[in-house]
Amino acid sequence: MTAELISVGTEILLGNIVNTNAAFLSQECAKLGLSVYHQCVVGDNEDRLLEALKMALKRSDIVILTGGLGPTKDDMTKAAVAKLVGRSIVMNEHSRQRIIEYFKGREDYTRVAENNWRQAEVIEGCIVVDNKNSIAPGEIIELPAGKRLILMPGPPNELKPMFRNDIGPYLAKLQEVVLYSEMVKVCGIGESMAETMVLDLIEGQENPTIAPYAKTAEVHFRVTARAASEEEGKQLVAPVVEELKKRFGDNVYTTKEEESLEEVVISLLKQQRKKIATAESITGGLIAATLINVPGASSVVDESFVTYSNEAKHKRLGVKEETLKSYGAVSEQTAKEMAEGICQATGADVGIAVTGIAGPDGGTPEKPVGLVYVGCCVEGKCEVEELRLKGNRQKIRDMVVVRALDFIRRGILQ
Amino acid sequence: MTAELISVGTEILLGNIVNTNAAFLSQECAKLGLSVYHQCVVGDNEDRLLEALKMALKRSDIVILTGGLGPTKDDMTKAAVAKLVGRSIVMNEHSRQRIIEYFKGREDYTRVAENNWRQAEVIEGCIVVDNKNSIAPGEIIELPAGKRLILMPGPPNELKPMFRNDIGPYLAKLQEVVLYSEMVKVCGIGESMAETMVLDLIEGQENPTIAPYAKTAEVHFRVTARAASEEEGKQLVAPVVEELKKRFGDNVYTTKEEESLEEVVISLLKQQRKKIATAESITGGLIAATLINVPGASSVVDESFVTYSNEAKHKRLGVKEETLKSYGAVSEQTAKEMAEGICQATGADVGIAVTGIAGPDGGTPEKPVGLVYVGCCVEGKCEVEELRLKGNRQKIRDMVVVRALDFIRRGILQ
Repeated sequence: MTAELISVGTEILLGNIVNTNAAFLSQECAKLGLSVYHQCVVGDNEDRLLEALKMALKRSDIVILTGGLGPTKDDMTKAAVAKLVGRSIVMNEHSRQRIIEYFKGREDYTRVAENNWRQAEVIEGCIVVDNKNSIAPGEIIELPAGKRLILMPGPPNELKPMFRNDIGPYLAKLQEVVLYSEMVKVCGIGESMAETMVLDLIEGQENPTIAPYAKTAEVHFRVTARAASEEEGKQLVAPVVEELKKRFGDNVYTTKEEESLEEVVISLLKQQRKKIATAESITGGLIAATLINVPGASSVVDESFVTYSNEAKHKRLGVKEETLKSYGAVSEQTAKEMAEGICQATGADVGIAVTGIAGPDGGTPEKPVGLVYVGCCVEGKCEVEELRLKGNRQKIRDMVVVRALDFIRRGILQ
Repeated sequence: MTAELISVGTEILLGNIVNTNAAFLSQECAKLGLSVYHQCVVGDNEDRLLEALKMALKRSDIVILTGGLGPTKDDMTKAAVAKLVGRSIVMNEHSRQRIIEYFKGREDYTRVAENNWRQAEVIEGCIVVDNKNSIAPGEIIELPAGKRLILMPGPPNELKPMFRNDIGPYLAKLQEVVLYSEMVKVCGIGESMAETMVLDLIEGQENPTIAPYAKTAEVHFRVTARAASEEEGKQLVAPVVEELKKRFGDNVYTTKEEESLEEVVISLLKQQRKKIATAESITGGLIAATLINVPGASSVVDESFVTYSNEAKHKRLGVKEETLKSYGAVSEQTAKEMAEGICQATGADVGIAVTGIAGPDGGTPEKPVGLVYVGCCVEGKCEVEELRLKGNRQKIRDMVVVRALDFIRRGILQ
């Protein structure tokens, strides 16, 4: 089956917002085995919306519309769809009750505008899909010849849960096959190298398929099988995931779709009851901030230091003046002393230290922009890694964070 | 004039990448006064691309195609366009020379594949636009009735400079009017409040127009005038910018398009020759990291502390145990002592301290998730601000960073 996405909203055509909904829905459709051949964006204009709708229904089985379900006169998705399918717009009592409930608990209860009730109106005969995060419901309109029109609200925090909870499962039931996928997340290895290492698998296989996704300093491989049941899907996917794990070894940090590298690091530290502290120069606190973004990080992070100047490296971490003078702040020796120093200063079991040149200025032929040293101490045992990264200041710093987190992970796994 | 965007690439239809090019080009077109009524995405498929092209050329004056100019057999934009306009594809000697130059300085010179030369081929009679960041040139094809097809490479780091340097100026010349705009960036005031404060201006005016853009804890207003010349545009925009500055007072942190809040803070600190240090709990280093992302931050930031645990707040910053016990870590008193403490511990002229509850756990009825205290000391003078923020962990932390930066800005402006 084919699906097509129509995003409605002048704010997208003005470039005021990036159309992340289209990327989300395309990914979800791909997971469900739906082929998406077209995405389009139209503004809050009935004629152009009708034109887009007609074309989409002609060439695709499922047409997913997002946006234009709000309360103002700019929101015309329902009116256009009603006109196209020749049905009327009716008040949906269930959705009206939900609006009352929604506003009850809020300060702005008195401010339920007349317009808000319009959001409880739906296309006659549609399947109403509750919006758990606001008041405009989704709608599924089943049409002759197996065609379907799906209307969803535009805000991502309403659209995403609605798709995951209701629309996705509805579409999955229409498919004769089940798509089952698992994710193998790899770091500490370049994108083209990672792809080369599994090129034979990617080229040779049809089911399951292996799709690589490049992230900052990471590569994720999605292994997807088409099968008659989820059980069969699992069986098809398992040996491929095993093969990927064999080839990438300890570069694989998780096979869980939703798990991030910092979450892996935090849960390893929790398991081993180890405390961590960071000593950051080039990243200026970004590693600590990334770790602390994981809920519950407080059980493994007490404190960290940003030591940007040479003096701070010396005073806070005990990096020897001699070391800074002979080897420079960006050196293997300094990174090592920083990592040792942060453990000593804070009593942490694990210390991670980074020093490098983020640019745009400050590079020399011997020490170019992108040269970074990462030091990691785990219970007194220290290692230093040299990185040579490419990119602008922000990109280099983001890559250092990932590489440093990976270095911690390897250090505590040893 | 109308413009339409066609993004070519199966990776967008699979949701593997977000179509940020469309948002960028839409914004640029809006700045040039071009009306964009359609954006669409098609995969690497000649039939569907031809269908999209035909429709676009029928309804729009300028059709901008991005992607599909690479060296592989998946890249078929040029072939489809050549077929549509009935011209042949010819080798462009200038672009061929550029490819030779491009690979000369690189290690992978020997790896210039036969396919790469295909990227020097262009549609007969087009205007060739150099790609300063890679090898596939852009192309402008002028057609009868004032229609134009513009081909650009897909990678954003190639597309953006090409548009800014060459394609944009080319399109600007086609317009009878000049669009001139300035940006007024506001923080420390909510989005709906900010809009309400200028609603009369937004509703009343036609030229210049005022368009609000909501950012994390900021609102940006773009003031745009259509005029016969840039000089006239400036004259039209000036009184509106003045009026916005009058209404928002010191909530306006810049009127420069490219200037960020952290850049303003860093340059104020540089001007006043003041050093800054942060003491971060809830943000875990993110404020320091944001400041240090500004090139040259090293002249005003020496070091900072992440003090996540109560013990660290006491030990590093001298927050009294009594204070932590009586008022708690998330309190006005603790924020104040943290800010004073970081100045004392580091000798910085300006100290910023944040403590709060980011969630999802840890909230109570008295101290809910989103409660944050920001303390700021400027040369001994301390102030504390209480924030009550809404959102998930990440969003709350991102908002705290902006509010803290703004608090620093106000503190050093006094």
